[in-house]
Amino acid sequence: MIKVQYAARSERWNTHEAPLRAAFADAGLAVDLRIDHAPEDVDYVVYAPNSDLQDFTPYTRCKAVLSLWAGVEKIVGNQTLTMPLCRMVDPGLTAGMVEWVTGHVLRYHLGIDNTLLTQDRWQPMVPPLAEERPITILGLGALGQACAEMLAQIGFPVTGWSRSPKSIEGIACSHGDAGLRDALATAEIVILLLPDTPATHNTLNRETLALLPRGARIINPGRGPLIDDDDLLASLDSGQIGHATLDVFRVEPLPADHAYWAHSNVTVTPHIAAETRAITAARVIAENIRRGEAAEPFLHQVDRSLGY
Amino acid sequence: MIKVQYAARSERWNTHEAPLRAAFADAGLAVDLRIDHAPEDVDYVVYAPNSDLQDFTPYTRCKAVLSLWAGVEKIVGNQTLTMPLCRMVDPGLTAGMVEWVTGHVLRYHLGIDNTLLTQDRWQPMVPPLAEERPITILGLGALGQACAEMLAQIGFPVTGWSRSPKSIEGIACSHGDAGLRDALATAEIVILLLPDTPATHNTLNRETLALLPRGARIINPGRGPLIDDDDLLASLDSGQIGHATLDVFRVEPLPADHAYWAHSNVTVTPHIAAETRAITAARVIAENIRRGEAAEPFLHQVDRSLGY
Repeated sequence: MIKVQYAARSERWNTHEAPLRAAFADAGLAVDLRIDHAPEDVDYVVYAPNSDLQDFTPYTRCKAVLSLWAGVEKIVGNQTLTMPLCRMVDPGLTAGMVEWVTGHVLRYHLGIDNTLLTQDRWQPMVPPLAEERPITILGLGALGQACAEMLAQIGFPVTGWSRSPKSIEGIACSHGDAGLRDALATAEIVILLLPDTPATHNTLNRETLALLPRGARIINPGRGPLIDDDDLLASLDSGQIGHATLDVFRVEPLPADHAYWAHSNVTVTPHIAAETRAITAARVIAENIRRGEAAEPFLHQVDRSLGY
Repeated sequence: MIKVQYAARSERWNTHEAPLRAAFADAGLAVDLRIDHAPEDVDYVVYAPNSDLQDFTPYTRCKAVLSLWAGVEKIVGNQTLTMPLCRMVDPGLTAGMVEWVTGHVLRYHLGIDNTLLTQDRWQPMVPPLAEERPITILGLGALGQACAEMLAQIGFPVTGWSRSPKSIEGIACSHGDAGLRDALATAEIVILLLPDTPATHNTLNRETLALLPRGARIINPGRGPLIDDDDLLASLDSGQIGHATLDVFRVEPLPADHAYWAHSNVTVTPHIAAETRAITAARVIAENIRRGEAAEPFLHQVDRSLGY
């Protein structure tokens, strides 16, 4: 029996217990999963960095600490954590992002808001085909690339932009400042999936918003600071931007008096596009325990000198 | 110069002229496209069956009549039409159906209606992943199969049901009456893409609607008679069915006093899911003219003895 301790804030136990038990069973692992093992008996710790557990000294036989979070900055420097530490790389997070982005792109493409608002008339308006609707994705990391490939699969002409050159089959890739102008010039829908760095702050501002075709739609599941909020509001008011769907904000939760809430051409979603999913995260944990038991290298083991 | 006559109701000329000219140019064909060639000069007729043109006798050098419509029942028996007749098989119709179905599935999956209705609160509710949302498609013809494959690609577990056995990679296929019970038992979203035949009328009725999990959603881009309307309305009122999105109806346009219009858990769309698209249909016409000029066999040539 492999002894696994679940160490995270207690309300998360309800979310994670059943998926973890299912993943262990699917992996053929005989696991005794508890929140209250005696520390000296524990083989593996499943850990969220908001846990009270900070002193790993008594966990003398623990083979690895397996984080439920991607970010391990809160424990990577913990001197008592001497066993291997693995961070979470959750395929469910990418899948959820692709579903959310694809759903909101198709919502704009098909005019679903208008369908829901005008439920009283028979007024056939056939939307153009996806192949007639150019889309641009800013940011071609793992999430941007996965979204670009799904949208191209549906038939949209997809342009992807990144700071440094990339090459992805079926995607028109551009880069650098000149590439950004080209990528925005034809985009009817723009998706923001850039990282949050000083260089990406206010990527969409008055000047770049003006490069888009009139009435373009903006989807931001990336990071709040990618957009200059005042410039976006002005572009929405002038009609230069037709609509925006925003999942991330400089301040979250978005303050109740923020202009985005009241704007008729803005849809606010509460930072739900990218979430670790209990069901897929549990499979990653189970796979790492299987590897530990088979003395195979762990997935996503943190290099303490790099910090990730 | 290849002389092509456009013969359809005049208001359609605005829709088709530019896409036809573009498709001819893309195919490298030097075409003189007009609505008023002298009949004896015409090489090809591009034809919609609602055209006034009924006597093909003067079209002595015409190599083919190329229909813009899939259905050619109105001219297939025309005795003056002695040249090859080709019907339209438009890839854009399938593409548009896949886009519409995928968009409405993701709308349900992500809870987009609720997002749009509750634009005043920050209330994070992360939807399940597509892999946790079983979907069933009734009908596995060209359209059903294309939709099934796209939804499976996104990650939904897709069951497909047809009257006779089929096998499609990545889709759990079932058939016959027993298969229908199984296909409905777990479906959170049901998509109707069956043909309109006496055997398919009222496929969804009180008995089959009761087989679905409580709160299931129905999407019907297929044919109106597939659903018993009174039974669906009763199931919506009881909560057995959570919501329905309906694009086709027994009577179209849907009468203004029909209960579907007023029902808060029904979305009506005006028969827009499957339409021949001018841009893709024009490419099929151009390809057939290219084939005619190269003395290659035409695509989709009608067998007059079969009638299609």
